Amino acid sequence: MPSKTFPGNYFEDFAVGQEIVHATPRTVTEGDIALYTALYGSRFAMTSAATFAGSMGLERMPVDSLLAFHLVFGKTVPDISLNAVANLGYAGGVFGAPLYPGDTVTTTSTVIGLKENSNGRTGVVHVRSVGVNQKGETVLDYVRWVMVHKRDAAFPAPETVVPDLPGAVAAEDLHVPFDLTGVDYAGELTALAGSTDLWDDYEVGERIDHVDGMTIEESDHMLATRLYQNTAKVHFNALAQRETKIGRRLIYGGHVISLARSLSFNGLANAQVVAAINAGVHANPTFAGDTIHAWSEVLERIELPGRTDVGALRLRTVATKDRTCEDFPYKGEDGKYLPEVVLDLDYTVLIPRR
Amino acid sequence: MPSKTFPGNYFEDFAVGQEIVHATPRTVTEGDIALYTALYGSRFAMTSAATFAGSMGLERMPVDSLLAFHLVFGKTVPDISLNAVANLGYAGGVFGAPLYPGDTVTTTSTVIGLKENSNGRTGVVHVRSVGVNQKGETVLDYVRWVMVHKRDAAFPAPETVVPDLPGAVAAEDLHVPFDLTGVDYAGELTALAGSTDLWDDYEVGERIDHVDGMTIEESDHMLATRLYQNTAKVHFNALAQRETKIGRRLIYGGHVISLARSLSFNGLANAQVVAAINAGVHANPTFAGDTIHAWSEVLERIELPGRTDVGALRLRTVATKDRTCEDFPYKGEDGKYLPEVVLDLDYTVLIPRR
Amino acid sequence: MPSKTFPGNYFEDFAVGQEIVHATPRTVTEGDIALYTALYGSRFAMTSAATFAGSMGLERMPVDSLLAFHLVFGKTVPDISLNAVANLGYAGGVFGAPLYPGDTVTTTSTVIGLKENSNGRTGVVHVRSVGVNQKGETVLDYVRWVMVHKRDAAFPAPETVVPDLPGAVAAEDLHVPFDLTGVDYAGELTALAGSTDLWDDYEVGERIDHVDGMTIEESDHMLATRLYQNTAKVHFNALAQRETKIGRRLIYGGHVISLARSLSFNGLANAQVVAAINAGVHANPTFAGDTIHAWSEVLERIELPGRTDVGALRLRTVATKDRTCEDFPYKGEDGKYLPEVVLDLDYTVLIPRR
Repeated sequence: MPSKTFPGNYFEDFAVGQEIVHATPRTVTEGDIALYTALYGSRFAMTSAATFAGSMGLERMPVDSLLAFHLVFGKTVPDISLNAVANLGYAGGVFGAPLYPGDTVTTTSTVIGLKENSNGRTGVVHVRSVGVNQKGETVLDYVRWVMVHKRDAAFPAPETVVPDLPGAVAAEDLHVPFDLTGVDYAGELTALAGSTDLWDDYEVGERIDHVDGMTIEESDHMLATRLYQNTAKVHFNALAQRETKIGRRLIYGGHVISLARSLSFNGLANAQVVAAINAGVHANPTFAGDTIHAWSEVLERIELPGRTDVGALRLRTVATKDRTCEDFPYKGEDGKYLPEVVLDLDYTVLIPRR
Repeated sequence: MPSKTFPGNYFEDFAVGQEIVHATPRTVTEGDIALYTALYGSRFAMTSAATFAGSMGLERMPVDSLLAFHLVFGKTVPDISLNAVANLGYAGGVFGAPLYPGDTVTTTSTVIGLKENSNGRTGVVHVRSVGVNQKGETVLDYVRWVMVHKRDAAFPAPETVVPDLPGAVAAEDLHVPFDLTGVDYAGELTALAGSTDLWDDYEVGERIDHVDGMTIEESDHMLATRLYQNTAKVHFNALAQRETKIGRRLIYGGHVISLARSLSFNGLANAQVVAAINAGVHANPTFAGDTIHAWSEVLERIELPGRTDVGALRLRTVATKDRTCEDFPYKGEDGKYLPEVVLDLDYTVLIPRR
Repeated sequence: MPSKTFPGNYFEDFAVGQEIVHATPRTVTEGDIALYTALYGSRFAMTSAATFAGSMGLERMPVDSLLAFHLVFGKTVPDISLNAVANLGYAGGVFGAPLYPGDTVTTTSTVIGLKENSNGRTGVVHVRSVGVNQKGETVLDYVRWVMVHKRDAAFPAPETVVPDLPGAVAAEDLHVPFDLTGVDYAGELTALAGSTDLWDDYEVGERIDHVDGMTIEESDHMLATRLYQNTAKVHFNALAQRETKIGRRLIYGGHVISLARSLSFNGLANAQVVAAINAGVHANPTFAGDTIHAWSEVLERIELPGRTDVGALRLRTVATKDRTCEDFPYKGEDGKYLPEVVLDLDYTVLIPRR
């Protein structure tokens, strides 16, 4: 009798063009919003208050788009990265329809790249993953690539396909879920939003130390990662991790993304929406007990076609462990990430204009 | 003035036939569902996605039936087992009306058995506990028995009444909350459910190692046990536990049941509903830091009267601490549970047929 | 370019009469209720069961009023107490309109007192903070005062203004959110509420040991404090706390208030509503690992104007760390709090009459 359990796919199980429908669609609720707040302490007004979301022209209070990211990511883990050596990168992450409580997200991935490594024991798999809601609208579309073990090193290498990766998501591909036409955001909403700094006030090259720090406990990251139904063993199984070189549980990189975004409120309070994830690197592992700080740099100030109410900022947000960010720690002279840097995220936020 | 605090009942406070209305009815919400997901990472599709539940003919997404179990169990603790030495067993647990967000559960217990131990200091109490929803429909009906301290060893022993305990819940007593008539579950829903293995594919005697492991932290089990409003002191009070032989907080046995059920997804993904708990033993205590693994054996494959869309499997699921389950650890040559075995649960799940 | 981050206000930034609109209004949901239950295990029936709330004449199940307190308090932290040396006291806290899931709370504070300390480096700021719902109804109105650092000791002292602090909230100012006219609470609801002791059964001077104890973990208090969007650094940043005399994270005093209230169920089960906070002192710091116990004394038995269905009790609830309360620990012979006492709360609850 064949095994009833699924060991995850190995490198030789993937083929370019293969489409994988991921298990367990997920209905998002107000319960998820409360937990997200409890896990990260996020204070962006549009995703905290129905009244504020209403003032921005939304019919209801949406879910933080990073929660949509985690749910879509989590679904792909059992099929794509259960046997991964490393999560190598993200590209072209576009958030589409906002996610509201009651919506159900279903995720499908397509294999778009395969390249066996020269050691013959691992290979790199590129997938494009798309989360859609119950109406068939795209909630998130992004590419990630992972290094995956081969089950059998003797298995012949597939033809190498390296996909053209998108650069930063273009202005015309950003989805703005709100409309401030006729709204005096600068005059009426900034006090409740927590800052008077709007799109117009940021400059390319400007760097912001987000000041605050947050220590992560084992329960915190495991609650989060289970909430996203992410099944990667390294986050949960202390017994198995004891046998590894690292010796302990690793924190899901997305947990650090959400913490950094939450810390960025102090300096970016009007950046109400994460609209795109252009690229991202989990530069070093994070463990329970680490205290996360973050700083950001404005990479681009983007005008949105046909919109005078809102603009976009392309940001680099860097998160560190056990090191404050007043000196903007990043890379050493050798061009490598400093050992305290855990996240280098290139993403795009929406922020009202004057 | 009599004390305002309630010390819990002692053995001599119980009488056969006595009915106890338990305090604090409990309204279940989407917040409970989100927390349940965060605590256990459960991935069964029917209780994760409203769309999937709809495809199975349910009007809304129901709550995991084990959450109903924990809520009903929790209510009985202040009256039944606050002065318990040990929770000895379960029998005849039948899940009735599915629980939906917004439903309120009220729990009542009837004492059905009493037997003083020969030491004169403790006795065994059997209770049948019934949780009903706001419409008066039974949500859960089960028997458990506990060993309870006497307040006063000199108090005369009651007449011994040992109830006839039900064996495994019979096929005709199982409640199926969904209807797959006209639904091509095998063709259309298995990809989203996470497995193509249906009722027809399991064989009596088949054993499944669920592979994954989950480490428990103090916060995790305390959050869960408080969510269920279970007041057993041993789970919460490190100060008092330091004075005991065991020296530390004990994890609520039901927390391990839910973890084992969640781990069983890998091998039993289509077992959408726990319909009955036939018997259960918490074989050894579980503590924070322990990593739980689980394996299952198919005890019976049960046809349901008048149903060709769904069948039942009677399962034994065994959970271990700090030991993987590829060799199906259970009992030693002396017939006693191995020290790593923490749960031996005999229960019945519903699983669609081809 | 001016800094985009907000360092919080210092003593010299406050002026008597100044009004501060606090950032991030907050919509309360069923998710918050579930988390509140998971964090404290509260068992008061009116805030646990929609059916019970309905029996008390409420249209829906309200949120625990202490959750409203935490949300309002949390909002004031970034503006009022980010640079505080200590939270000195509370007064005149009146709960108004009950908070229901879906309601949004917005908080505003007015500076009502300023007094520089003789050391010239700190001063005491009194603020009156008001939380209103989306209909403009007051949810909570209270005064607190904090000792805040000066940014610059050379800055001249302001004119001293010490406000007249209200004493205990008067009977006519208490808001009763339910109506038991025509309801036989004593006969029909006490079993579900968990006690037959009603307003009539308590005597002034009576003391109650609430018996149970609860150990706090780092994750527990941080989840709670983030849920309230409270940004006080001392609760979250282990790295920064290591540099302080105390060496570790401090637990938010409000977390202890909610734990003490939850423990008080055993002895005060019919005290369904906290209607006022008259005064409060966080007598000693609480840390992760501490086990909290509590006891209460009845300070006053208050008749409510025009009401025969319900009365109020003014209570002192004292919480301790790592010490049980059968001997009602409070102050030493020197009049100072015992080192194990962490909370001395003077508040008023509503409790049905016979």
